[in-house]
Amino acid sequence: MNVKGQHYNTIWINSTDPSVVKVIDQRFLPFSFKILELRTIDDVFLAIRNMAVRGAPLIGVAAAFGIYLALQNNIENQTNQSITKIANKLKSARPTAVNLVMAVDRMLQSIKKSDLPDEQIKIALQAAISLKNEELENSRKIGVYGLPLIENIANHKKNQQVNILTHCNAGWLACIDWGTATAPIYMAHNKGINLHVWVDETRPRNQGARLTAWELGEHKVPHTLITDNAGGQLMQEGLVDIVIVGCDRMTLDGDFANKIGTYLKALAAKDNNIPFYVALPSTSIDRTIDNTAQIPIEIRDPEEVLTVKGWYDNHSTDVRIAPEGTPALNYGFDITPAHLVTGLITEKGTCKANRQEISYVLS
Amino acid sequence: MNVKGQHYNTIWINSTDPSVVKVIDQRFLPFSFKILELRTIDDVFLAIRNMAVRGAPLIGVAAAFGIYLALQNNIENQTNQSITKIANKLKSARPTAVNLVMAVDRMLQSIKKSDLPDEQIKIALQAAISLKNEELENSRKIGVYGLPLIENIANHKKNQQVNILTHCNAGWLACIDWGTATAPIYMAHNKGINLHVWVDETRPRNQGARLTAWELGEHKVPHTLITDNAGGQLMQEGLVDIVIVGCDRMTLDGDFANKIGTYLKALAAKDNNIPFYVALPSTSIDRTIDNTAQIPIEIRDPEEVLTVKGWYDNHSTDVRIAPEGTPALNYGFDITPAHLVTGLITEKGTCKANRQEISYVLS
Repeated sequence: MNVKGQHYNTIWINSTDPSVVKVIDQRFLPFSFKILELRTIDDVFLAIRNMAVRGAPLIGVAAAFGIYLALQNNIENQTNQSITKIANKLKSARPTAVNLVMAVDRMLQSIKKSDLPDEQIKIALQAAISLKNEELENSRKIGVYGLPLIENIANHKKNQQVNILTHCNAGWLACIDWGTATAPIYMAHNKGINLHVWVDETRPRNQGARLTAWELGEHKVPHTLITDNAGGQLMQEGLVDIVIVGCDRMTLDGDFANKIGTYLKALAAKDNNIPFYVALPSTSIDRTIDNTAQIPIEIRDPEEVLTVKGWYDNHSTDVRIAPEGTPALNYGFDITPAHLVTGLITEKGTCKANRQEISYVLS
Repeated sequence: MNVKGQHYNTIWINSTDPSVVKVIDQRFLPFSFKILELRTIDDVFLAIRNMAVRGAPLIGVAAAFGIYLALQNNIENQTNQSITKIANKLKSARPTAVNLVMAVDRMLQSIKKSDLPDEQIKIALQAAISLKNEELENSRKIGVYGLPLIENIANHKKNQQVNILTHCNAGWLACIDWGTATAPIYMAHNKGINLHVWVDETRPRNQGARLTAWELGEHKVPHTLITDNAGGQLMQEGLVDIVIVGCDRMTLDGDFANKIGTYLKALAAKDNNIPFYVALPSTSIDRTIDNTAQIPIEIRDPEEVLTVKGWYDNHSTDVRIAPEGTPALNYGFDITPAHLVTGLITEKGTCKANRQEISYVLS
């Protein structure tokens, strides 16, 4: 999507020097638009770990480029062991989203096609670019398949404003372009549908306030920032027509992990009979697990809860919001059971959140 | 309760000069413990409006002292008209909590007993002190009646730690002492019951992080700060045994307004079969309304959502968390329907959240 009128993806190979991968550094948004250069596998690991890049689809693609950089830098003479170690370390950077694991495994599979280091580098680059293009196309198609849901509400409301609530950032910043939850929103907005987005701020890292509000603003999509506490009351007052969220990992039964707080919005949507949709590429569905108990829920640094990052006097500042010495717990994700989900929006179409329909869509 | 080992109430008449009312200034907690002197009705109005004092029971008592100060300062020669004007302005300072309206009306009723200005001042002082003492006793009794709920869980868990979740600050800082939601917690802790409190940070003003964490810490009650998003997942993991919240205004049917976000926790508690209790003095029950649509939901300054107040480099700082120009909406309260409530804890005993039981308790 556009940034100050210029079109960007979230990640790309440097056009003049293909040994450098560039990403939008999301830690400084919305206050500063910085491009981060990734030159080594460690750069990629840290970018994922520190959330310079984040969002399930994007961290998968970033990890794929990481494998390419590792091969290119001829780490430990590219013994199989070193690549396996590197791969495992990358996977551990953010444990909850399945895309990371799947992307790394897919890269390892690809480079097996050759024993020649130079050949492997070429294969890895091509494989990473392919994954990027696939995720981009996934997002576009999620937009195409999700658009009618918004159009139907607009028709039903006789073109009164359609109010959409979203949590965290499942926007183009979490993907390559378009986003997941935001893809139908951008498509509907581009088509001239009168819509408005309620943006949950999404503590503790405020990806809603920092990223979703920013990208919707850059694309001129009407939106309003609210606290994570507010969505339930808005739903009770009839001010939400549909909820669309992203997903970090889903089981074949449609239960899923997403940013902490998603479950609460799903409960409120159900209680108020409001459609609740999960927008996700099929790469976020984990066929290897039977239930959500097998999804590792990332527990992050308590400092993220005890402080808030913001902007003050022209610089980024972390302010402390609790007494010194307060213990805090920082779950990154929660589990939303499938029975609260109206449906999925995938690159292969929409479906209900049950094993039969999900398997059919995946096949 | 204690602050650095010394016992405090939240509000008191200055011992050497009874024309001054003193309050703990909650805007600076937890980083600075300041006492604010209130000398005029305007001081009281601003203290309530700016949330130097907050919490349904406390703002009622503060308003009562405000009427006393107005009379004492001989405002507009104490014509009935001026007192009525003053009273209406006071009531408008925070529209949602019913205690404010009830306290002001009770004061107006009291001073009708005399036409003599000096007599009225004495009556007003006595009436304000009576209300303070009643609210203090209400909190203590809420503790007495709520204690067995926690004791029963402790017995059932064979003295493993009882995990209690609370939202916002329904602590002693919201009252005179003991609190509402915290009263049973302090009593149980004082009795040696092994308990731990999950403290919702409660955006946008973070009364959980700033006030509840502080007062529990000062009283050495084990607690952990969490984001408002986290409670649902904790409940799904069996890490919450009971939820206790406060209340700003309840109908006779048991539907109630409380700090924004309460409804989401009630939904999660219901979904996970966890008891959800509302602790409130009967002064928070509004007999004059039929349903929650008649409760005015305060909409506060959007800047509270767009910024976060915290502590940085030894001073209080508001940091901006969203792009410049982002629209925001700031609902102060939400409505939780009675069917999500396991029961009420009042100064007159516990009861279910329905008209029959509430009327019986009130009678």
